[in-house]
Amino acid sequence: MITLPPHLEDAYRTLLARFVAIPSVGAEGRGQDDMAETLGEALAELGLTVEVHGTDGAPVVFAERRVAGAPTVLFYNHYDVQPADPLELWESDPFLLTERDGMLYGRGASDDKGQLVSRIIALRWLRERHGELPFGVVFVVEGEEEIGSPNMAAYVEAQRDRLAADVAFWEFGGVDGHDRPTLVCGLKGIACVDLSLRTADFDLHSANGPVVQNAAWRLAAAVASLRDDDGRVLIDGFYDAVRPPTDTERRYVEAAPADDDAFAEHIGVERFLGGVSGVEYQRRAQLEPTINVNGIHSGYGGPGMKTVLPASATAKLDFRLVPDQNPLEIVALLHQHLERLGFDDVVVNLAEEPEWPARVDPEHPWLSHAAAALEEAYGQPAVVIVSSGGSGPLHPFVEILDLPVAMIGVGYPGSRVHSPNENVRMVDVHRGTYATVRTLERWAGLAPPE
Amino acid sequence: MITLPPHLEDAYRTLLARFVAIPSVGAEGRGQDDMAETLGEALAELGLTVEVHGTDGAPVVFAERRVAGAPTVLFYNHYDVQPADPLELWESDPFLLTERDGMLYGRGASDDKGQLVSRIIALRWLRERHGELPFGVVFVVEGEEEIGSPNMAAYVEAQRDRLAADVAFWEFGGVDGHDRPTLVCGLKGIACVDLSLRTADFDLHSANGPVVQNAAWRLAAAVASLRDDDGRVLIDGFYDAVRPPTDTERRYVEAAPADDDAFAEHIGVERFLGGVSGVEYQRRAQLEPTINVNGIHSGYGGPGMKTVLPASATAKLDFRLVPDQNPLEIVALLHQHLERLGFDDVVVNLAEEPEWPARVDPEHPWLSHAAAALEEAYGQPAVVIVSSGGSGPLHPFVEILDLPVAMIGVGYPGSRVHSPNENVRMVDVHRGTYATVRTLERWAGLAPPE
Repeated sequence: MITLPPHLEDAYRTLLARFVAIPSVGAEGRGQDDMAETLGEALAELGLTVEVHGTDGAPVVFAERRVAGAPTVLFYNHYDVQPADPLELWESDPFLLTERDGMLYGRGASDDKGQLVSRIIALRWLRERHGELPFGVVFVVEGEEEIGSPNMAAYVEAQRDRLAADVAFWEFGGVDGHDRPTLVCGLKGIACVDLSLRTADFDLHSANGPVVQNAAWRLAAAVASLRDDDGRVLIDGFYDAVRPPTDTERRYVEAAPADDDAFAEHIGVERFLGGVSGVEYQRRAQLEPTINVNGIHSGYGGPGMKTVLPASATAKLDFRLVPDQNPLEIVALLHQHLERLGFDDVVVNLAEEPEWPARVDPEHPWLSHAAAALEEAYGQPAVVIVSSGGSGPLHPFVEILDLPVAMIGVGYPGSRVHSPNENVRMVDVHRGTYATVRTLERWAGLAPPE
Repeated sequence: MITLPPHLEDAYRTLLARFVAIPSVGAEGRGQDDMAETLGEALAELGLTVEVHGTDGAPVVFAERRVAGAPTVLFYNHYDVQPADPLELWESDPFLLTERDGMLYGRGASDDKGQLVSRIIALRWLRERHGELPFGVVFVVEGEEEIGSPNMAAYVEAQRDRLAADVAFWEFGGVDGHDRPTLVCGLKGIACVDLSLRTADFDLHSANGPVVQNAAWRLAAAVASLRDDDGRVLIDGFYDAVRPPTDTERRYVEAAPADDDAFAEHIGVERFLGGVSGVEYQRRAQLEPTINVNGIHSGYGGPGMKTVLPASATAKLDFRLVPDQNPLEIVALLHQHLERLGFDDVVVNLAEEPEWPARVDPEHPWLSHAAAALEEAYGQPAVVIVSSGGSGPLHPFVEILDLPVAMIGVGYPGSRVHSPNENVRMVDVHRGTYATVRTLERWAGLAPPE
């Protein structure tokens, strides 16, 4: 196996430890300025010119080194992390990088500080292999990814000239549950909405059931109306804008390994929605848009019984969308659906800035370089994933900046991102960082040193 | 207005203060033995023989004085009270009877200590008016009414010979929102069930929405399937056992004052279920059985968003039933309904002992005595309510002991039973206690003293 030179392996640990020590928890609004400054220093050491760009939220750390007449690679990452709660489930201090059994533990060790440090070390390695790089480099590192990147699309739009580039790496990537390298080519869009309903000024005794509407029942009925038992969305027009998969996309979906049996056992389900498995499981997971109920709450939920008629109810939903669904149009269709069924008393609120779906051609030359680099680094072909089930601010990079984006990196399914004991495996750091190096060498036509 | 003699008014306050000072909170399992003992002393002072009967739960205070060859009146009451929480909303100590503006405040001041003391004072007054009473008296005072009287039906069945009587007073009663005296003739039955559902071993990221069932959606769909928007229950066979109202019942329902406009304004609703008003409102409230959702809970309900796919969900339901619906059969029909619709993964648990519905003929001579007494005491005709929307252990008294039961008393809609600042109005104590006295005098053929 190809490994980082020892001094770069040390550098990886040292820089990641510095980053992890700063609790840049976006949701708690702390540590962000400190983290932006420390990150700026690390990027300046790579020979990049660093600027901190204000937004309506946390600042973006922008860094660049252009090479006249040469193409440019852009790195999108984020320096914010999820809260460390619940603290008592951590086996070591979440803000003190700790090595155990070949893994480095800490909040952000994978998402996204571990991935970001891998990109920085890859560029150091490239400079050691080739001297000053013959291509341009841009970093865009935001501080609000964990709260849904509410300002990223506007930032990209406003800074489109400064961000001009030719190819890009995304903030995440890694191996699947069988240690096969993956190349992800798309993200779903997302729109989160809150539903709420009030049927009376206050909760009543349930003896009023024959004459007063029950908010819990009524919101349950509204929520039930949105999809069928198989997960098919029942909102008129929901699927109208779905772009049919290309032949290429279809081919990669069909070629994706069907790990559904193992996943079913892991999560304790006997049957997936619609009874799907194999290719159809992959097709759904990668290409189907959904409506999902994050939660529904109304009335009494404590021990024993309380014969109350609830006067109010709330539910939270997220839509996961695929090209070319427009999140704002989907929310408008939700409004129309509720109105059509007489649920005009259900109040719909968009919970945050939505994200648009986006995909990249899996056979774009940049992605082919990445796939070939992965095969070199891991000794086996990459699994190409047409679209992740998750979301992120990919759309402005693909649609505004017109960038092919490669999603490869140092994560693995056991990274516990967003959870206690988040970690990165050193074996993934070695292979994933090498894959980044080889992708850039192939793209830039740089022969690896003897 | 007829009032209690001053020494009996004082006696009412004194005895109620003694009772209220004992926190006999059934749900907290405290004060019950102390209360049973104090109550026993008060009943012994009436010349009754007192026994404390054990049950599987709190003891029943039984007291009797039989008169050979003469009929017997039975009083059903309860000595337990609701918890006083939330304490900070009380304007005076819930366990220190406090008089303000003609009202006596304290936990149980109405439900049921204030009602119970009214019966005791009525018997004292009768003895002062007529000497030793020429009819038998039995008290059955339980300590678990506020937790659904789980042992009352079995107690009545076991003690049916000791409880033999001819007529009975129920534990509550009073005036309506226009200070009209009411005579309630029935209670609905009740069955409380918990529904629960699990679709995976743990909550998942909502990116799994295309392939994994969502517990929140699925339980919402199950709950939604149980009734329509108008409140009509959609469980096959639910209405089969409903006994059509008699002509007498129908007449009283039609004669009941339609106070639905004022109630709608009070609770802040523009429209009742089915758009009903007037007679149809009364018919529904008194005669319709229902399914009611006490609460539904699943997944995330905090601030902002969390894109989770919930793996479990719970709901609590109560059925309010009318003669001759059998609560156990209704729960069996619920099982069948869920199975028929494919919701065989929804687990149904009966939350506590159900109560059967029961009604008394509004024109039974005993109730006619009560109605006439109310008209004397209040100076206006009683409003006859064929059935309350609420429930209680009426069924064993009506069906096992074959008793006509009159529901009259000293409550009013502002009594705040089960809530902070529970109270009884002295004006109701005077009139309600007098109505009890006059009902018994009419029934026993005792002429009121000059």
